[in-house]
Amino acid sequence: MHCDPQKAWNDIIMIASLETPKLILDLDRLEQNASRFRQRAQQQGILLRPHLKTSKSAEVARVATGGRMSSVTVSTLKEAEYFAKEGFSDVLYAVGITPNKFDYVRQIQDDVKQNILLILDCLSVAETAVEYSKRTGCAFDFLIEIDCGEHRGGIASDDPKVLEIARILVDAPNIQLRGVMTHAGHSYGTDKIDRIIEIAEDERTSVVGASQVLREVGIPCEIVSAGSTPTFLHGQSFEGLTEMRCGVYVFFDLAQYSRGICRIEDIAISVLATVVGHNRRAGVLTIDAGAFALSKDQSANTYRPDVGYGYICDAATMERLGGLNVSTVHQEHGTVPISDESWFERLPVGSMVRVLPNHACPTSSAHDHYIILNNQRVTARWPRVNGW
Amino acid sequence: MHCDPQKAWNDIIMIASLETPKLILDLDRLEQNASRFRQRAQQQGILLRPHLKTSKSAEVARVATGGRMSSVTVSTLKEAEYFAKEGFSDVLYAVGITPNKFDYVRQIQDDVKQNILLILDCLSVAETAVEYSKRTGCAFDFLIEIDCGEHRGGIASDDPKVLEIARILVDAPNIQLRGVMTHAGHSYGTDKIDRIIEIAEDERTSVVGASQVLREVGIPCEIVSAGSTPTFLHGQSFEGLTEMRCGVYVFFDLAQYSRGICRIEDIAISVLATVVGHNRRAGVLTIDAGAFALSKDQSANTYRPDVGYGYICDAATMERLGGLNVSTVHQEHGTVPISDESWFERLPVGSMVRVLPNHACPTSSAHDHYIILNNQRVTARWPRVNGW
Repeated sequence: MHCDPQKAWNDIIMIASLETPKLILDLDRLEQNASRFRQRAQQQGILLRPHLKTSKSAEVARVATGGRMSSVTVSTLKEAEYFAKEGFSDVLYAVGITPNKFDYVRQIQDDVKQNILLILDCLSVAETAVEYSKRTGCAFDFLIEIDCGEHRGGIASDDPKVLEIARILVDAPNIQLRGVMTHAGHSYGTDKIDRIIEIAEDERTSVVGASQVLREVGIPCEIVSAGSTPTFLHGQSFEGLTEMRCGVYVFFDLAQYSRGICRIEDIAISVLATVVGHNRRAGVLTIDAGAFALSKDQSANTYRPDVGYGYICDAATMERLGGLNVSTVHQEHGTVPISDESWFERLPVGSMVRVLPNHACPTSSAHDHYIILNNQRVTARWPRVNGW
Repeated sequence: MHCDPQKAWNDIIMIASLETPKLILDLDRLEQNASRFRQRAQQQGILLRPHLKTSKSAEVARVATGGRMSSVTVSTLKEAEYFAKEGFSDVLYAVGITPNKFDYVRQIQDDVKQNILLILDCLSVAETAVEYSKRTGCAFDFLIEIDCGEHRGGIASDDPKVLEIARILVDAPNIQLRGVMTHAGHSYGTDKIDRIIEIAEDERTSVVGASQVLREVGIPCEIVSAGSTPTFLHGQSFEGLTEMRCGVYVFFDLAQYSRGICRIEDIAISVLATVVGHNRRAGVLTIDAGAFALSKDQSANTYRPDVGYGYICDAATMERLGGLNVSTVHQEHGTVPISDESWFERLPVGSMVRVLPNHACPTSSAHDHYIILNNQRVTARWPRVNGW
């Protein structure tokens, strides 16, 4: 079936009648993952602020927040606008803001009548924000970004700039310094749980340390935000934190599986593909999910080189088919090497498979919607907000 | 400036006022590349059927065809529908068709009142097409796909199946076997011009050989189609071919540059990005173009490992800035290692750069439009048709 993105989704159909490639989301698995993480947050007495960069979908966000419709994280201002317009409040845009984006922030805030929570780690941006706010009347809510060891965004918690930035912001009219945040992106760089536990503790102590720097001079620090899927799952203490931000856990993927963060049967996302060719000279099947439908991300392969660009599964049952994987991708072709010719009979041209993706975020980003599966029936079509 | 995709493009603005990340297309370079390839096709007396999978844009396709609005190649049925509705005729969908896509083909053909040219390499697909056509009245135009050595799609020109498939199709009502096609995708797998010349000759002789197989038994073969950017540029003979299909030449990229196929100054596409952070502990700049805005494709790096995820250039002049590149990407962050701290002064937080992409096709695919530059002025916004 051709799913015209312009048309409403009216039919209840089975997976076998879908056209391909299609991004499939298993509702049961999504709900299980979301529920498990919400429960852990409750047990730890901490707010879970899901990072919606993975799903970019209001419907997924409703599941992730358990209907709370508040306190979410986004990776683009376009997402911030979309989720705020979909009714979500307390939206954190977790990429360092720069002055050339102030106009867009102001437009969003005017449209949705709420402030977007922004992050910064730079004196000049703080100074420019104060000037901009004075000139335009635009309100800003900020967190200061702390570098807990990944050395991407942020400044060290003991860097004198933490206080310098804070002092610029606290006295400015229309500006609220709400707290501090960090992200241990390097927690994805290991498959050793002991090492993740250490990184989680570094993440916690660095951002809690920064909050103490502020409070010691009488600057309030309402929000102390950290988090990634691995550090939330394996962190031993959340003391001093007010919230954790995790993203990929809603879908999981083979990159997380390769690091021991999830089981294969937790992975909620897959790409439905059709076998479009048999190349008997090369001993390969070709499917219509290639570099675009799967992405060229190979995050899993450090720990599981056999993942290639994804594992091949039965389209209906999601059981893995032998050890088949997608070994090579071109724009719209994926190449699946086979060990023996019986696969040509088992997977004739025109038959369908599902591919468990290497990394859920980039795989999903090529698709503008999800096909929602519930007990193997297609029940909905959920849009995504891609791009910038 | 925030470019709302829903709004018409009304303002003439300068690049410095753009929000980021943005996909920038230099009109002069595009026109030069398109013109050069059209001239070569004219000189060789062969039709150039541009592959629009790179641009996915009707406006780029108008430039590529020199306004001819006919004979183009696409990689998805969604592109086929889009370009046909934009007024292009003779659209070749160059991925093996399967029966689950016949309904969509029929819908497009009914809507646009023209047949899409399809490819196949499989007896069962040919048989099913005949049945489907009899049952629904749907007309089909086909080329048989030949494998010229890449071992992706297609069958060997001397495979008896070439004739078997042809015989199934030629006698069927409403079905036209229009000819044969091949693609030397392996021409991208070398930086040796001599090797490309050999591959181009393999590409030509294999598909011309298949055309002879058909003609020898009295089956007409109107179209004998081959091509890739490298084999079109370096092929020594096009005898027996009726057309060549090239895609990436309209934009070029560092993957083509790394193989000696283009000069840096031919590259028409770039990503405008903002410096969003300085990490002095790690000696890196962070920009807001990461894995999504640039893609994780590293096709150039086999021959030029220094490309990383792209070269950093001056936002206005496009001159390369030192040897700076994007070495690491996260979803919305690109990391740019610097050799000395003076770069922190030369590229302050909030300043802009442009990134020459590693591989133009996946980089462009993350963006839903191009910002068109003409002599450093923004003159238009051209949409793309992504997804399926």
